[in-house]
Amino acid sequence: MASLQAIKYSRGKLLVLDQLRLPHEHHYDEVSTAEEAFECIRSMRVRGAPAIAIVAALAHAVELHNGGCKATTPEDTIAYIESRLDYLKESRPTAVDLSNAIALLKLAARAAKLKGLAHPEAKEAILNSYMEAAENILAKDLENNTSIGSHGAAWLQQQYDATSDRPLSVLTHCNTGSLATSGHGTALGIIRSLHAQGLLKHAFCTETRPYNQGSRLTSFELVFEGIPATLITDSMAAALFAQRRARMNIGAVVVGADRVVRNGDTANKIGTYALAVLARHHGVKFVVAAPTTSIDLETETGDGIEIEERKPEELTQISGAVVGPDGKVDTTRTARVAIADQRIAVWNPAFDVTPHALIDAIVTERGTVVKGADGRFDFSRVLPERWRW
Amino acid sequence: MASLQAIKYSRGKLLVLDQLRLPHEHHYDEVSTAEEAFECIRSMRVRGAPAIAIVAALAHAVELHNGGCKATTPEDTIAYIESRLDYLKESRPTAVDLSNAIALLKLAARAAKLKGLAHPEAKEAILNSYMEAAENILAKDLENNTSIGSHGAAWLQQQYDATSDRPLSVLTHCNTGSLATSGHGTALGIIRSLHAQGLLKHAFCTETRPYNQGSRLTSFELVFEGIPATLITDSMAAALFAQRRARMNIGAVVVGADRVVRNGDTANKIGTYALAVLARHHGVKFVVAAPTTSIDLETETGDGIEIEERKPEELTQISGAVVGPDGKVDTTRTARVAIADQRIAVWNPAFDVTPHALIDAIVTERGTVVKGADGRFDFSRVLPERWRW
Repeated sequence: MASLQAIKYSRGKLLVLDQLRLPHEHHYDEVSTAEEAFECIRSMRVRGAPAIAIVAALAHAVELHNGGCKATTPEDTIAYIESRLDYLKESRPTAVDLSNAIALLKLAARAAKLKGLAHPEAKEAILNSYMEAAENILAKDLENNTSIGSHGAAWLQQQYDATSDRPLSVLTHCNTGSLATSGHGTALGIIRSLHAQGLLKHAFCTETRPYNQGSRLTSFELVFEGIPATLITDSMAAALFAQRRARMNIGAVVVGADRVVRNGDTANKIGTYALAVLARHHGVKFVVAAPTTSIDLETETGDGIEIEERKPEELTQISGAVVGPDGKVDTTRTARVAIADQRIAVWNPAFDVTPHALIDAIVTERGTVVKGADGRFDFSRVLPERWRW
Repeated sequence: MASLQAIKYSRGKLLVLDQLRLPHEHHYDEVSTAEEAFECIRSMRVRGAPAIAIVAALAHAVELHNGGCKATTPEDTIAYIESRLDYLKESRPTAVDLSNAIALLKLAARAAKLKGLAHPEAKEAILNSYMEAAENILAKDLENNTSIGSHGAAWLQQQYDATSDRPLSVLTHCNTGSLATSGHGTALGIIRSLHAQGLLKHAFCTETRPYNQGSRLTSFELVFEGIPATLITDSMAAALFAQRRARMNIGAVVVGADRVVRNGDTANKIGTYALAVLARHHGVKFVVAAPTTSIDLETETGDGIEIEERKPEELTQISGAVVGPDGKVDTTRTARVAIADQRIAVWNPAFDVTPHALIDAIVTERGTVVKGADGRFDFSRVLPERWRW
């Protein structure tokens, strides 16, 4: 099975798939400086919280490897690294993964300095420590996703006694795949793992209005890897469950998470909450895939999550490759078109919150968390240190 | 209040609003022959089951008024009228309203012939009978819609003790307004009536993927008439109920119907069923607006309704007026763009079926039907003759 990679890296070289050209073109940009990474993130050529953090971390690693740091003293080396990271942080100021990664990278650089080596070993040690930490973010993310995939697939297999003779179908929302991460993906990672084990009958994906991450990106990933899949509009999920659940053995909705709070309430792409209500109504399991880094134990309930509202034009206009009068898609020409009355008021929340009552399982890289007899999620097993704290 | 009219008619002249140019342009076509009506319907310049039937009926009335019928004998006159109507029927073969209207118009023409008048009075009588019957379809549709609006508004007012100090908000789906009918509309007619009575706080409309009748047409109507309104994606309805129901006093989802069967199960635009499940989950009433002509007492349950599946390109591509680099909409240029991976398989059902259990009221021009203690809709009061038969 070909494996889709949004990020290709070896020491000194970083290639990033231009997601704005997807699904029509498959083009990698070489990203060698913080400026190039900033522009790549700002322009949305790379998206997905983990992927953004990885591209920022690795772009700076490449520039350090290529002699970008002219400082000689340990202090100046640290100052240079920190200024570049602070600059990169502004490429997407709201991304939690990015700020966490930057904090971690700064610690790694300072840790090397603390070893108290003399010049020029000191500078070398700092650069190496940074590069190893950045590369470790990439490796760790891929490892985590693979674990989430295995845990999620195992849990679903168990719920339904799924076998290769009685495989399951699942519905997913938005894009949580290789394009949003270092590879494999979170919710889409569960689908990949089911497929790899012969337990997947069919994947359904919503188009995910208004930004169409499902129809543009998840569809692309599913086609790319030859996973049997069908696209629907967000509004068709209920009809899909009612008409096709039995025939297609639809067992679960699997989604990612922007933030899971202490009681399990989950903020994710707008439309997720509706799918949770519809899944419950039809007896379909609702599964959230979330690396432990996206679990926020300091916020008690979903009421504490602020929802970003975005501009009306994201909903009333859309861009895409131009379709000619012959019905052929011209990948060299892009147009933006108005798909609504431009004078109407618009409500455009980016996320919604799914209450924990509607969630059956939260799958992390350390295992699957389900609710106890009291109806509450208990994260103490997967996050023992942070839970106590 | 300005009243939006998709169809303007006086004897000898028919003007039809070109809905393909909406919402950016407001242009009427003069439709004077069956051929022009056929093209107008086929190209979707007019849409909505009642509106299509009215345009077909009246276009032929105009052509008869203007001397289009060269026959002299009653038999030849009837044969001419029937051949033109049979031709018009093919403009949208699946539309029930259109075939019903055509059957009724043929009866009207034949009824005049049966009076046994001599030449040339016979021909005149047939032409007049046809024209009056066609004009009556228009008048009757408007009358029915106004009644549906009043009955629906009264029922909702009663459920919530709504007053001008405590007005209601409602959500609607697809387009069921003046653009789909002779005027006022069915579900949108209820919103218009609430607004006219000072009982409407706010109207919300879904964009209604994949054809965007909500964002293109309903938004246009709401803006045109100055009704306070907000557009959301289909996927935002659940979040709207969860976050805004209390603050906005959201009392109901009101939708139209393509077909209501004997037990109250209702086929309507895809996405309707999801809204019914979500409304029930949030304690919001779910109301179907349906003229008695769309009630089919011969089909027992929704299982008997066949769902048309449409082509993938309706979902994976979209057309609209081009937005320039300055962000301005250029109404003179239209483009079609690809908004999904074009290789993905697509499921594109045009309709879904909402089970009667999720419907609180079915509003007809003869009154509002609710369920009895046995949980069943009883249409015998509004359709006494057809119910017995």
